[in-house]
Amino acid sequence: MGKKLTKRSEDYSKWYNELVVGADLAENSGVRGCMVIKPYGFAIWEKMQAALDKMFKETGHENAYFPLFIPKSYLSKEASHVEGFAKECAVVTHYRLKNADDGSGIIVDPEAKLEEELIVRPTSETIIWDTYRRWIQSYRDLPLLINQWANVVRWEMRTRLFLRTAEFLWQEGHTAHATEKEAIEEAEQMMNVYAEFAENHMAMPVIKGLKSESERFAGAVETYCIEALMQDGKALQAGTSHFLGQNFAKAFDVKFANKEGKQEHVWATSWGVSTRLMGALIMTHSDDNGLVLPPKLAPIQVVIVPIYKGLEQLDAISEKVNLLVKELRSKGISVKYDNRDTHKPGFKFNEYELKGVPVRLAIGQRDLANGTYEVARRDTLEKHTVSMDEVVDKIEFLLEDIQNNIYQKAFDFKASNITEVNSYEEFKSVLEEKGGFISAHWDGTIETENRIKEETKATIRCVPIDAKIEEGSCIITGKTSNKRVLFAKAY
Amino acid sequence: MGKKLTKRSEDYSKWYNELVVGADLAENSGVRGCMVIKPYGFAIWEKMQAALDKMFKETGHENAYFPLFIPKSYLSKEASHVEGFAKECAVVTHYRLKNADDGSGIIVDPEAKLEEELIVRPTSETIIWDTYRRWIQSYRDLPLLINQWANVVRWEMRTRLFLRTAEFLWQEGHTAHATEKEAIEEAEQMMNVYAEFAENHMAMPVIKGLKSESERFAGAVETYCIEALMQDGKALQAGTSHFLGQNFAKAFDVKFANKEGKQEHVWATSWGVSTRLMGALIMTHSDDNGLVLPPKLAPIQVVIVPIYKGLEQLDAISEKVNLLVKELRSKGISVKYDNRDTHKPGFKFNEYELKGVPVRLAIGQRDLANGTYEVARRDTLEKHTVSMDEVVDKIEFLLEDIQNNIYQKAFDFKASNITEVNSYEEFKSVLEEKGGFISAHWDGTIETENRIKEETKATIRCVPIDAKIEEGSCIITGKTSNKRVLFAKAY
Repeated sequence: MGKKLTKRSEDYSKWYNELVVGADLAENSGVRGCMVIKPYGFAIWEKMQAALDKMFKETGHENAYFPLFIPKSYLSKEASHVEGFAKECAVVTHYRLKNADDGSGIIVDPEAKLEEELIVRPTSETIIWDTYRRWIQSYRDLPLLINQWANVVRWEMRTRLFLRTAEFLWQEGHTAHATEKEAIEEAEQMMNVYAEFAENHMAMPVIKGLKSESERFAGAVETYCIEALMQDGKALQAGTSHFLGQNFAKAFDVKFANKEGKQEHVWATSWGVSTRLMGALIMTHSDDNGLVLPPKLAPIQVVIVPIYKGLEQLDAISEKVNLLVKELRSKGISVKYDNRDTHKPGFKFNEYELKGVPVRLAIGQRDLANGTYEVARRDTLEKHTVSMDEVVDKIEFLLEDIQNNIYQKAFDFKASNITEVNSYEEFKSVLEEKGGFISAHWDGTIETENRIKEETKATIRCVPIDAKIEEGSCIITGKTSNKRVLFAKAY
Repeated sequence: MGKKLTKRSEDYSKWYNELVVGADLAENSGVRGCMVIKPYGFAIWEKMQAALDKMFKETGHENAYFPLFIPKSYLSKEASHVEGFAKECAVVTHYRLKNADDGSGIIVDPEAKLEEELIVRPTSETIIWDTYRRWIQSYRDLPLLINQWANVVRWEMRTRLFLRTAEFLWQEGHTAHATEKEAIEEAEQMMNVYAEFAENHMAMPVIKGLKSESERFAGAVETYCIEALMQDGKALQAGTSHFLGQNFAKAFDVKFANKEGKQEHVWATSWGVSTRLMGALIMTHSDDNGLVLPPKLAPIQVVIVPIYKGLEQLDAISEKVNLLVKELRSKGISVKYDNRDTHKPGFKFNEYELKGVPVRLAIGQRDLANGTYEVARRDTLEKHTVSMDEVVDKIEFLLEDIQNNIYQKAFDFKASNITEVNSYEEFKSVLEEKGGFISAHWDGTIETENRIKEETKATIRCVPIDAKIEEGSCIITGKTSNKRVLFAKAY
């Protein structure tokens, strides 16, 4: 605290790292690439979890829990899946430590070597489909609509708090269906659930779309995604929902008897969002003073800071504040009265600004005399003097208004950062000078996609669901194309 | 379904295993010792989590998340801790797989060997205290009251669903305090929170007590526990809360400046309950027909089964039932209307009996004509015909009455299965013929404890908190003792 953040305009990446640590969201641990999610950061994640979990249950899903470990042989069963996930994973090879004979400490017991190595799950399709084989016999067992909240591990070489860590928290939905149509509808439904969550709770506008073949999930037939735009003009994939076809059902031999008694392979989806959303949340709204949180996800929605000298003044203030706290809580508003005598009001103001508390009230002697509070909103930093009679209404208004205002601001930013280009020259200059999403015609080939990626670092973020059909020609090859796709540099 | 459970009196252990699988709570996975928690079982665990989490937050704790992996060297820092936990753990030695050169599949890449092995956390004291060193500087940073919901791994050789699995889910609280007194109070408080949860939510009476030295947590100064009694006369440790003294603070060099500016080591506690509670819940209440669930933890509190022939009859029934469902839900009662046409009423009755749904309603043509429901309670299996006007009141009464009734039944069972003995002969015969807790004088030595354990398999479950001071002599050595302790065979 006290030390100012690096400005976003100076070094966005440095600003991000300072903010994540400074606002008590997360920090690096003694284990390479693994983060500690601190209580304040975890409280935001819990609010995300609660909202998502409710939406999953409302769409008929149930939670379950599958093993952390995946036998090595399972990973190999789906050919493209193993290519995508075998590369960077944590491998358990032994099950015991022992004291070294020379007294030098504890060592891995060479006699406790596993017959088959276990992989710490990077994702759970394989262990889950191995289980579904036992659960699914008949069309009566379908659909199977299951979600799991879990930790997963992918051995990333370059890590960044929340955005890319070796271990992260996520949810993974895994569903099984009798028909292709139903599975596709499920995959689309979950993309829509994610988009609704991003926009209504995180106040983060997203673009819904389909991934190109090269960006697809390893083992998927089609990957649906939601893409968001960060303040620095880079895109961030915020959630994916995969139509898996019958790939995993075939790999794990999961069949069901249909109504006519005929055996068929099951159709599948999987879908997930992770603690990466924390990074997206931070980079969508925050400013040079610190975090800006949407009221719906803020662990503390309102903070009240007393300004006083001596216990007598504090008591007089507390008498008023305690009534207000009670009233706000009865309305389901989370409020903190920070009457610590170990810190000065100015210090507290900075702290809550850094932590993104949406509404801050201050009350001093003059306020007490006038029957007012000073009310500050975090998004615009505006302050108003509000009478005690009206302060509850004002707070309720502000919580809604801030939620809407930061969404609108992010929406406008995104809208003004989708640029249509019609040549590769234009593409490169927009990418360099403006950033954001670039909407361009593409011939649909991996070769073209790869060339653009190699030359510019931009990738195809998605083919937007609502892309309009129009005649065009690929900016690289000039071949005909019937819709534009979105390119961007991405996190 | 359809197949009857083995009777408890025939083979308690077999009954338990059949019930866990039959009631769709959990099953073994393809990974040795790791279970799959199925949706119905997980829904019960979620209810436990929600109730506990609320109690933790009401007592001032916050949630956070720490890494899954613990560097091998951390484990060694606290001498007695490493002895307790290094033995049976999953060790990550490599971070990559690759295709075998001979095309035989994927193998561990020998070039991707970790410099230091990582242990999959068996418990998190070491990684957390390594973190707390960074978080704690001054008395202002204390107390630090943190809880984590997580998965942990202990490589058990003989596993049983919920009771002892290689991977299990749990919560682990880890707190730091400025004084010894405050840390002891915290450890006691959390034992009390666990007892309250066990008794009020699980309807499971427990005995609060202190562990003997040999049963203490590895690294603890004192271990508080709650012990429950299963129907087969064996005890089950349902939760533990440890006063850790300054052991971990010293091992990880965690000091704080007190109000006088002097550096002191921090005082610590840790406390946890796990999915083992699911086993305790099952073995406390269930019967030969299946699960008996306390209404407070039942995912489905009321099930309604229509008895009909043809769609017309079903429609007439549904019209009534839908109104009832709506009314019950508005009262926060979870209700399922099972109008599946793929199964007969008798099948459904058995299914919900097996799954322990507290209240079952049935409605057929005669009920419809008479304006009644047939209402059955799971605990006593009693049935009554209740008029539609009174059915909501009746259900509300039953949910409360079942919760109380099964608690009282378990309480009476426990009370009648604590036997005071005054000689080793008596001890052995009670243990053999009756089981349960045996209350006896003990000389306080590990030697005596070990001898009893070796000869009878009974261990000291705890020194009850409310043990009365009385003169006595150890049943083995005859040495004086001033209070009785509780022995039992245990899960």
